[in-house]
Amino acid sequence: MTSQFNTLYALDLLGTAAFAASGALAAVRKKMDLFGVIVLGIVTATGGGVLRDLLLGDAPPFCFKNELYLYLAVITSIIVFLSPRRFERMGRAMLFLDALGLGTFLVIGTSKALAFHLGFAGSVIMGVMTGTFGGLIRDTLSNEIPLILQREIYASACVVGGACFYFLNDTFVPPAINLTVSALVVILIRGAAIAKGWHLPRA
Amino acid sequence: MTSQFNTLYALDLLGTAAFAASGALAAVRKKMDLFGVIVLGIVTATGGGVLRDLLLGDAPPFCFKNELYLYLAVITSIIVFLSPRRFERMGRAMLFLDALGLGTFLVIGTSKALAFHLGFAGSVIMGVMTGTFGGLIRDTLSNEIPLILQREIYASACVVGGACFYFLNDTFVPPAINLTVSALVVILIRGAAIAKGWHLPRA
Amino acid sequence: MTSQFNTLYALDLLGTAAFAASGALAAVRKKMDLFGVIVLGIVTATGGGVLRDLLLGDAPPFCFKNELYLYLAVITSIIVFLSPRRFERMGRAMLFLDALGLGTFLVIGTSKALAFHLGFAGSVIMGVMTGTFGGLIRDTLSNEIPLILQREIYASACVVGGACFYFLNDTFVPPAINLTVSALVVILIRGAAIAKGWHLPRA
Repeated sequence: MTSQFNTLYALDLLGTAAFAASGALAAVRKKMDLFGVIVLGIVTATGGGVLRDLLLGDAPPFCFKNELYLYLAVITSIIVFLSPRRFERMGRAMLFLDALGLGTFLVIGTSKALAFHLGFAGSVIMGVMTGTFGGLIRDTLSNEIPLILQREIYASACVVGGACFYFLNDTFVPPAINLTVSALVVILIRGAAIAKGWHLPRA
Repeated sequence: MTSQFNTLYALDLLGTAAFAASGALAAVRKKMDLFGVIVLGIVTATGGGVLRDLLLGDAPPFCFKNELYLYLAVITSIIVFLSPRRFERMGRAMLFLDALGLGTFLVIGTSKALAFHLGFAGSVIMGVMTGTFGGLIRDTLSNEIPLILQREIYASACVVGGACFYFLNDTFVPPAINLTVSALVVILIRGAAIAKGWHLPRA
Repeated sequence: MTSQFNTLYALDLLGTAAFAASGALAAVRKKMDLFGVIVLGIVTATGGGVLRDLLLGDAPPFCFKNELYLYLAVITSIIVFLSPRRFERMGRAMLFLDALGLGTFLVIGTSKALAFHLGFAGSVIMGVMTGTFGGLIRDTLSNEIPLILQREIYASACVVGGACFYFLNDTFVPPAINLTVSALVVILIRGAAIAKGWHLPRA
């Protein structure tokens, strides 16, 4: 473990907590009970990585090999359950943490897909899925049309970041720089989209 | 096959039929056609075990290795389709069979996860998922917020039973006793929750 | 590769495009953005085969081994996004292409399941799932009760075709004839059901 991967691991855990909080908040708004809040917290935090590992044939998925992800999601969900207003007031800070998690999950997913010898489309899809699938299940379980399918520059920021990672991976750029640059691409596009209210076109 | 596992297998089949009936009934209420009724019956009865086997990397899942589970779900669904009122009138008896299935599926899921060397959180989650995921897909396909996320002591009874199984498994308690005790824990908590109207807290 | 399999491959690609178009159209109707349209296109076109490969333990699924399926779904979705009215006006032609895709996906799914030594129920289910699961996720993501669970002779045509394939597979009938006959069974039943307004009974 070099420091670059320790940093990535720390960001991964931070993103996991941020995603778990967003799932738990959605459950609180739908008036689910404590169990429902924890389930939506776990699913939102780990769903993307679990689906990626299933599709790559790497069972059991990451969070069953290192249960820290599961405990972190459970604890975060319980904290949200006990004081949801504190998290709702965080507004902007939550959006920033969410973008940080999105960028981190994207590079982890894309780099793992490349390690499993997937091609361009497959690697980008695995990255996008790692970043966004948890939120998609969260919305489906809350009986809403998934936000990522109808709103804002979100998953599309992941597509750009994933393509960036794929192409830099074939160059002399060292992995640590690539991971950082590609994650930053996602975070900056997502941040600018929030700040400026950017949208993708609709038909 | 000793008698203890024959008993578990019999309970497994009974639970499969009870879960299939609940899925088929939900489809009838949503005015689905015969095919929809059978699909919801199969999915509710086998969905939890199928997801568990996918996550454990044990493909193809159990009901494709022993198709008896599939035939049982299909036949139960057709019977429900032909006379749904008889099942609706069963009310309390259906709730009891459902609790029996829940406890059985939980111990099967948790013990299989332990055999695949999962840790505490993973084993409990696999048990809970085996017991509850079928119902969760049933509700999602019926376009409802899943009942287990918003109501009553249901999945939480599984969490207690799964934790019980995990800890007894490390002791001198023989497997057959552990399977029985942990399943009973689920059934009794669930039964008491129905009888007394217990609920988990909401935020 | 003999010509019979080239024909099957061509039909497979045609069906993929037809299914992607139906997913993209559903997304346009729900006013999703470009990203949502592409996601629903990909998922509708590949979802059935992806689930089949996961259940058979053949990871990564087919479209990650041959990315042509992914690119075809993306391009079709973008074309639908740019001129959805042209596709809506196609009405009958779209229904025919959809039935063609359904029959093709069914025989591909059933024959692959047989190659993985599944039994009768499992092989038919794998075929039906390959043909219909994409549409089922499409409807769930659009927050609708899946059409295949409530309407018309659709998946049930697949059940008949899958059973036909299974039984002919045990006879002296050569595989190419079996593939053709079983796919035609699906297409003809589905076509007749559209033309004559056939329905399955409801409870």
